Amino acid sequence: MTSVNPILENPIETAVEARLAMRRREWHLGTTHQFPGWLQTNLVVLPESDARDFLLFCQRNPKPCPIIEVTDPGDPEPRISAPGADLRSDLARYAVYRDGQFVEEVEDITHLWRDDLMAFLIGSSLTFDDSLIRAGIPRSEVWVLNSTIPCIPAGKFAGPMVVTMRWMTPQQAITAVQVTSRFSFAHGVPVHIGDPDLIGADIKNPRYGPPVSEIPKGVLPVFWACGVTPQSVALASNSKFMITHVPGHAFITDLRPERLSYR
Amino acid sequence: MTSVNPILENPIETAVEARLAMRRREWHLGTTHQFPGWLQTNLVVLPESDARDFLLFCQRNPKPCPIIEVTDPGDPEPRISAPGADLRSDLARYAVYRDGQFVEEVEDITHLWRDDLMAFLIGSSLTFDDSLIRAGIPRSEVWVLNSTIPCIPAGKFAGPMVVTMRWMTPQQAITAVQVTSRFSFAHGVPVHIGDPDLIGADIKNPRYGPPVSEIPKGVLPVFWACGVTPQSVALASNSKFMITHVPGHAFITDLRPERLSYR
Repeated sequence: MTSVNPILENPIETAVEARLAMRRREWHLGTTHQFPGWLQTNLVVLPESDARDFLLFCQRNPKPCPIIEVTDPGDPEPRISAPGADLRSDLARYAVYRDGQFVEEVEDITHLWRDDLMAFLIGSSLTFDDSLIRAGIPRSEVWVLNSTIPCIPAGKFAGPMVVTMRWMTPQQAITAVQVTSRFSFAHGVPVHIGDPDLIGADIKNPRYGPPVSEIPKGVLPVFWACGVTPQSVALASNSKFMITHVPGHAFITDLRPERLSYR
Repeated sequence: MTSVNPILENPIETAVEARLAMRRREWHLGTTHQFPGWLQTNLVVLPESDARDFLLFCQRNPKPCPIIEVTDPGDPEPRISAPGADLRSDLARYAVYRDGQFVEEVEDITHLWRDDLMAFLIGSSLTFDDSLIRAGIPRSEVWVLNSTIPCIPAGKFAGPMVVTMRWMTPQQAITAVQVTSRFSFAHGVPVHIGDPDLIGADIKNPRYGPPVSEIPKGVLPVFWACGVTPQSVALASNSKFMITHVPGHAFITDLRPERLSYR
């Protein structure tokens, strides 16, 4: 399958092409439902002084924070999941935070890079959207919601889980559990099915997506742990400096989900 | 199933009972083929100054180093996998190393504990021995061998993978791959099947187990990543201070492998 950007003359077929299009600032769109067949990851960049506790937080909360790779201090190249890539330029959009506050959105972070920064690549559920479709589950709107599901804290990193919500039929929900059980490296199986109130998810006030007043009859909401959780937790911890991808604008690795399912 | 220690009057049925028997120094034996149904882990205790790089090493090498839990600095209680347990007393035997050299073997490390120590619990293949037997694969001698399979380094932690070898028929090897694919938290599927030379495993000089001059006809050696790898790597890195379990004398957690297979 290929991804077509109306700006580009030729369709993008490989992860390398996708990253280079972003590096050359030819690809400004999100990555949702794009680049099927390649593992997509969220990005969190933190100073190395925060690394140990953030690593511990991810280790203790593998559902929202499945770590794919962590780079050495100062190294912008993800040598395992995308050798040759440059995490300072190979995503379409970055969000910069200082002292726990959003500062700006940029298309390149080369000028902000420092010797003490480490990049955390965290599996994204955008990776399994294609597999859900191929299993006969139609595209759903994807909401991002706060929940009250607690994460296990580590050092200063603490806070509740952020979740994604997709709508489907009960039969499709059963299939979705089967499909995503092969994606433990990208949030894996759902954390909840059904009543949003049971996990404190306020569908009237989503973080992302249209507000919902009522769940339609016949629709079963299915909730997955979301990769926005570590960003949210790092922000709440007042990290002095953090760079992330802009939600929906993931990093495209060279890894094949089908291969990762059978490690 | 129960585990009977000739010293104890009553059989041990739960992980808590197993840990308390070790704490009271009533259980001095190894844990191989004991306490089926509970996740067993290897133990590595290191100063917090080594923690970030050791965590990175484990993250980059999940086959030999599947992390189950990491305790906070100074905290000897594994609050997630065995709440109430004390890692300073609840294993049968510990090995103490200083400046990269083995110093002594002890039954309790309370007197050695410090505020800056962190405990890493790493899934042990002893956990799946019971499942192999229930799948019709007879008990095999378990050899521990050095190999030339490289690990991905992290900071000062680097070195080749240590592997375990079990003997079985080709049909049993196929079943063993199926069985252990459900144990990604305890080394998972084999890293190699067949010719030991291909992974540089010297069966004439095993680290543990009887030397082998020749593989008998009809026997297929099957190799798994071994939890001795992180110990071996930490030693080679000249860690100033390290405590580990004595091989074959694992920590017994409250976790159920059947549950962990479906996370």
